[in-house]
Amino acid sequence: MRTVDLIQKKRDGFSLTSEEIKWLIDGYVSGEVPDYQMAAWAMAVYFKGMTTQETKDLTMAMVATGEQIDLSAIPGVKTDKHSTGGVGDKVTLILAPLVASFGVPVAKMSGRGLGHTGGTLDKLESISGYQIERSQEEFIQQVQTIGLSVVGQSDKLVKADKLLYALRDVTATVDIIPLIASSVMSKKIASGADAILLDVTVGEGAFMKTLEEAEQLASTMVALGNEVGRKTVAVITDMSQPVGQAIGNRLEVLEALEIMQGKGRPDVTAFICELAQIMLSLAGKEETLETIKQYLVSGKALAKFEEMVVAQGGDLTDLYRPSSAAFVTDVTADENGFIEELPALEFGLFAMRLGAGRAVKTDSLDYESGIVFAKKVGDSINKGETIAKIYSNQKLSENLLTEFKKNVKIGLTESQPKEIIKIIS
Amino acid sequence: MRTVDLIQKKRDGFSLTSEEIKWLIDGYVSGEVPDYQMAAWAMAVYFKGMTTQETKDLTMAMVATGEQIDLSAIPGVKTDKHSTGGVGDKVTLILAPLVASFGVPVAKMSGRGLGHTGGTLDKLESISGYQIERSQEEFIQQVQTIGLSVVGQSDKLVKADKLLYALRDVTATVDIIPLIASSVMSKKIASGADAILLDVTVGEGAFMKTLEEAEQLASTMVALGNEVGRKTVAVITDMSQPVGQAIGNRLEVLEALEIMQGKGRPDVTAFICELAQIMLSLAGKEETLETIKQYLVSGKALAKFEEMVVAQGGDLTDLYRPSSAAFVTDVTADENGFIEELPALEFGLFAMRLGAGRAVKTDSLDYESGIVFAKKVGDSINKGETIAKIYSNQKLSENLLTEFKKNVKIGLTESQPKEIIKIIS
Repeated sequence: MRTVDLIQKKRDGFSLTSEEIKWLIDGYVSGEVPDYQMAAWAMAVYFKGMTTQETKDLTMAMVATGEQIDLSAIPGVKTDKHSTGGVGDKVTLILAPLVASFGVPVAKMSGRGLGHTGGTLDKLESISGYQIERSQEEFIQQVQTIGLSVVGQSDKLVKADKLLYALRDVTATVDIIPLIASSVMSKKIASGADAILLDVTVGEGAFMKTLEEAEQLASTMVALGNEVGRKTVAVITDMSQPVGQAIGNRLEVLEALEIMQGKGRPDVTAFICELAQIMLSLAGKEETLETIKQYLVSGKALAKFEEMVVAQGGDLTDLYRPSSAAFVTDVTADENGFIEELPALEFGLFAMRLGAGRAVKTDSLDYESGIVFAKKVGDSINKGETIAKIYSNQKLSENLLTEFKKNVKIGLTESQPKEIIKIIS
Repeated sequence: MRTVDLIQKKRDGFSLTSEEIKWLIDGYVSGEVPDYQMAAWAMAVYFKGMTTQETKDLTMAMVATGEQIDLSAIPGVKTDKHSTGGVGDKVTLILAPLVASFGVPVAKMSGRGLGHTGGTLDKLESISGYQIERSQEEFIQQVQTIGLSVVGQSDKLVKADKLLYALRDVTATVDIIPLIASSVMSKKIASGADAILLDVTVGEGAFMKTLEEAEQLASTMVALGNEVGRKTVAVITDMSQPVGQAIGNRLEVLEALEIMQGKGRPDVTAFICELAQIMLSLAGKEETLETIKQYLVSGKALAKFEEMVVAQGGDLTDLYRPSSAAFVTDVTADENGFIEELPALEFGLFAMRLGAGRAVKTDSLDYESGIVFAKKVGDSINKGETIAKIYSNQKLSENLLTEFKKNVKIGLTESQPKEIIKIIS
């Protein structure tokens, strides 16, 4: 087998066999297939796509390039959840303990934020003492004991993904649905859960800009998961505006705590209950939205969250401390009307510039900074009322404030964005 | 400027600016742009092509990555010739001295053969003592003195081409017309000639399989040459069967000598006279085909050829020695009829297996082996008559002989293939 022939086969629109894909991925990880051949292959995939069979073969070939976590020692249906990324997305912080509070084990490996998107690991690390690096044994044992753990992705899983992702990033081959799907699903499959809820975000602040792309990615991943014996459901969710009220690591933890104390906005609370219902159902537990909401607002989910924080070394006293940001700037409305748009991308980038996110992977974070919206799309607002508070460790310039305001669209239309746009199972 | 953005721009179907292309090529040669980014760019070019302006910018950016030979010390219009490769193509060995015998200087850098195609350098090296490696000064001085030199391509010319060609070879990005055109023309432009005759071969034994592709490549190269002030004409020539009678290095030199002694097949003789007429015209000399044929068969071209051989260290006594191949096998016809097909690719590969060509670049050659056809397409043949003689240093197996015969198509149709299919100027 010659790599150049496999590249040409794909370039000319033919499908590679399972053996050919395995040979390519194994060769890439072993160093026999160089970066330049993988880059040419990836660009050919951009133009010619991959069949369902090829995508599955690629995913399983990638899974085989690293360790696979065996969760069989944990009784019950082990669940996992993944989001394709967004702004203000603190869903995992609430959903994972909520599902676990029903006795359904949640074993989740998370990632970090980059650019305008945040990452669950960063949010958890804003809690003083919280350890995201755990050995496989510790991870499994914690899920056995308290039914919940959220840790960092182990380096030993899916070696091909790290290499391929870094290569795609510099060769304009990131936005290719079968490659995104195999990247996500190879990690989920290697992480060992039996049931997976995928949150495919769509909109300006998400990786998928159109519903069509989001549906294609969601269907590809759901088919992949189910074909290899993992119960998989995807929800397509709106990322035209930020999720909930807060953007920024500590600010999002605080919002999560409020939601778990029954003090969250009704829309976010309802959204998370709907996700929990799907995830519980994947684990064979049919629960009404009322029961789920009861678990969420009564403190059951919060207790489970605190249990996890303690188990992973976090400081409960520090957990409830407000943001220590030096400056809190009130942004008020200049007119009456309804909030029509709060573009997620712009506010994600704004929060990044405050220090809440990373422009490049090596940037360090300011956990305390960010934005808390008092109003969301569809809310009415009066002149002089607070739209949002900006938390920062440097005084905000007038320019920055003007820029912030420019991105808030106030008008006469009262729209009601739906969090869950579509469910694909 | 970021390379990934340039790759994406091309991938999305936009044109790169002159500055962007120069940045890419300079960065590649300096090592700042890695192979994997060039590979992704080349694959994007496969799918999205390049505009005329981009192809010109690429060519000139490539020229600038190496030395450029200054032939201005030589009086007159300096001419050069290039073929895109073929089987039995000894045209340069005859055409170059023929044109030079009219007082038009020919300064040519040639290449080696690979796969089923032969290379002029290999043919010249089959002459005992002939030196293909000459310094720039020696090269220029020889053209000044005797009006003719054929040498190897200097390593100092077009550094980008060597790198890019090696990369394209292993990433399925060889067959891309703007990249082929810029590879050929950058070397021709850097070699310094004022006028260039391009022989674009077409057919099964050539790189361009269809007339459409050949025309596209020819037009692209002619436009490139003329735009940068080099008078350029392309001929599209037939490579469905081998050129002339011989395939194999020494055998082709011997055929060239016969043609220059007036003992060549009339069709090849006429073909070379037509090429010479175009090349002379490029240098401002209008000559009739009769005059040209006179120069060719009267010994004027041969005398010039011998002058070059002597000037480059070749042994004139050895020059006329017949092939020393240990075995000469006669292949005879099993039926009466006309030769309908002599597929160039198959016979090129056959000669390669005898040692006349290289399967990989590092293979050494058997200069003495090859094939001499007694009959060409369109010739009538009787049962028992010789079709060809096979020269080899190992005894031919029955299998090989059967394979040879299988490739000779004898039938009832008398076709007359035209050597020059089209002239593009």
